[in-house]
Amino acid sequence: MSERKPSSFVSHLECPKCNKTYSVEDINQLCECGSPLLVKYDLQKLRSKWSKTDLITREPSLWRYRELLPVKSEENIVSLGEGMTPLIPLKNLGEKVGIPNLLLKDEGTIPSGCFKARGAAVGISKAKELGVKSLAMPTNGNAGGAWSLYAARAGIEANIVMPIKAPKITRSETAIAGANLYLVDGLISDAGKIVGRTVHKNSLYDASTLKEPYRIEGKKTMGLEIAEQLGWQVPDVILYPTGGGVGIIGIYKGLKELQEIGWIGKKMPRLVAVQATGCAPIVKAWEENKKESVMWEDADTLAFGINVPKAIGDFLVLESIYETDGCAIAVDDEAIVKCQEEIASIEGLFACPEGAANLAAAIKLREQNWIKEDEKVVLLNTGAGIKYPYHPGEPAILQPSDDI
Amino acid sequence: MSERKPSSFVSHLECPKCNKTYSVEDINQLCECGSPLLVKYDLQKLRSKWSKTDLITREPSLWRYRELLPVKSEENIVSLGEGMTPLIPLKNLGEKVGIPNLLLKDEGTIPSGCFKARGAAVGISKAKELGVKSLAMPTNGNAGGAWSLYAARAGIEANIVMPIKAPKITRSETAIAGANLYLVDGLISDAGKIVGRTVHKNSLYDASTLKEPYRIEGKKTMGLEIAEQLGWQVPDVILYPTGGGVGIIGIYKGLKELQEIGWIGKKMPRLVAVQATGCAPIVKAWEENKKESVMWEDADTLAFGINVPKAIGDFLVLESIYETDGCAIAVDDEAIVKCQEEIASIEGLFACPEGAANLAAAIKLREQNWIKEDEKVVLLNTGAGIKYPYHPGEPAILQPSDDI
Repeated sequence: MSERKPSSFVSHLECPKCNKTYSVEDINQLCECGSPLLVKYDLQKLRSKWSKTDLITREPSLWRYRELLPVKSEENIVSLGEGMTPLIPLKNLGEKVGIPNLLLKDEGTIPSGCFKARGAAVGISKAKELGVKSLAMPTNGNAGGAWSLYAARAGIEANIVMPIKAPKITRSETAIAGANLYLVDGLISDAGKIVGRTVHKNSLYDASTLKEPYRIEGKKTMGLEIAEQLGWQVPDVILYPTGGGVGIIGIYKGLKELQEIGWIGKKMPRLVAVQATGCAPIVKAWEENKKESVMWEDADTLAFGINVPKAIGDFLVLESIYETDGCAIAVDDEAIVKCQEEIASIEGLFACPEGAANLAAAIKLREQNWIKEDEKVVLLNTGAGIKYPYHPGEPAILQPSDDI
Repeated sequence: MSERKPSSFVSHLECPKCNKTYSVEDINQLCECGSPLLVKYDLQKLRSKWSKTDLITREPSLWRYRELLPVKSEENIVSLGEGMTPLIPLKNLGEKVGIPNLLLKDEGTIPSGCFKARGAAVGISKAKELGVKSLAMPTNGNAGGAWSLYAARAGIEANIVMPIKAPKITRSETAIAGANLYLVDGLISDAGKIVGRTVHKNSLYDASTLKEPYRIEGKKTMGLEIAEQLGWQVPDVILYPTGGGVGIIGIYKGLKELQEIGWIGKKMPRLVAVQATGCAPIVKAWEENKKESVMWEDADTLAFGINVPKAIGDFLVLESIYETDGCAIAVDDEAIVKCQEEIASIEGLFACPEGAANLAAAIKLREQNWIKEDEKVVLLNTGAGIKYPYHPGEPAILQPSDDI
């Protein structure tokens, strides 16, 4: 077993639109041209220095991929043990819907009960490394909770703005972490404008989606883990509930990096962006073969995490779909709830609505034969169902002397 | 690396009170004498056949300890990837309270967000192996949710009776899993009586705490994991929030088994049963040096999971404390909430009230110098804070044009 101490092979930041480069030693947010920045690594060097067997004795957290993460010094790692979530076979459900090789990656079993912890762990760790003292971000709830908790652990002040309608449990997370919590009587886009003004006025670190380059590095570990868990093979299809889209961008980026260091072959999974019919800007853009999306008016779905009318990284999401021969598809709220109940009652897993949306999409794609019967298909369940309201109807109420 | 296929070394069931033995091939509940039964393994054989290095390539779930679990056939394993939860250093908090080597094992990152999943995974798997078709159980909520979900995955019918006052989120888990959910206008003891009558009348499997012998085997893996995560060393002290007490009994049993197969030395951690001042029957019994507890009248604490006025396994809990020179201690609800906020705002972890009770207890024990400054102390956080109501006060509400 290798005893070499792991360290980051990060090299610089690069703009995917204008190719301008930036240093990872300084605080950088968007490119001058307005585009998000991507983190680059010295993959040629890494190819010769890093081996799959190095991973065998490492802890089951996303930090097992230290070489492909941007944090240089171990002392800056802010971790609650996040990552290496289970990849669970959905055998019975898969047979029912005609996809026997159906799997679900369960991000419900991660700190804060939501995949946002990955972005927060890596984003906050790098912010700590860069000397950030105070940050601000808009959120639909889950990211705010996760970033507040990791910020608390790092000793960084967090200013969180979320819509009044965001799930109340995420208010609790944000508040108990000691963050400054603000509710806005509006949408996440309104929260974003408030944050934009305050980071400018008060020189705060802007932790908005893709306005700092490191969150995506945390999210990409979902892709790395799927490949490792399948024995360094990729599945045929990965379905991903797409709001801001950082997860799908990250998975694509992570798998490309694995290809470049020679750990997986040329095959890529077809990436599917799943949205709700009440908010489907990526689907519309994909159907029209566009490179960017248009703001979705009157966005509304119970799957709150994908209620994002216009994502700043939409062009990267669409690129990941086009480049992998994937697709984008919308499902309605009724199908989402039905699938949530089926996953729980058939497979024993209480998924969040966004995760359940993937099953609804997989069923449609199987019916269209876009997914073939023999294909290996991974659904990304982005969080725990317990974070959302669910209304089970009225159960029977007994007195102690009653029998059942 | 060994490629030998793991298999169970289970031998039989044994009564810890009257030593009568039973087969693991048949459905057995309590001993004829009324005591819970414990699972026994062929530890002498296991000592020569099993090596720590066998674990290196196994998945990070509790099933890595297959040899010390009661399920014989792999096809009966009902798993959602539970186990190998992180053991997280609480460095800042530890320094603050004078215990620099303070760690927290976080069971919030397990399916259903609660350690009950361990007992459910192993209990349901063994029930499946024994051919069980329908079970019933009383619950304060979390166990009912977890057992309903695993039962659904196994295709076993579940009949769950919980107090009306049990956390609503656990109703949702139980209902969405498709279990038969009944609310009783009373306490868990009332729910237990209803279940007692129905299992008798309808010949159902009784999955009540310790009335089936296998739940404890799932819980003991917390002890196995702590030892493995500390490099096959044990800490000086483990604090455990004690309701039914299966966790503390299990940790003690698991560590004894590790001693018998020679994987850890003679040292045992001092086990601490933490209860709430509103329901502290084990503490009272320990203070009076008794072997069993007395029913606690008018039990009441916001830490719902430890609101158990009389545990069927109380004598085993007390034995595990006496045998390890441990202790039992009660903390009040006010201290619990304060500690919950401290863990979140200092360490970034949203623990459940039961888990936070451990910190309150550790602080008291440190003040009494029962815990020494140089000791390694593990707090068992049994679940995610998001499963409980938390009232953060009223945050600021902004209009989109407002600044912060």
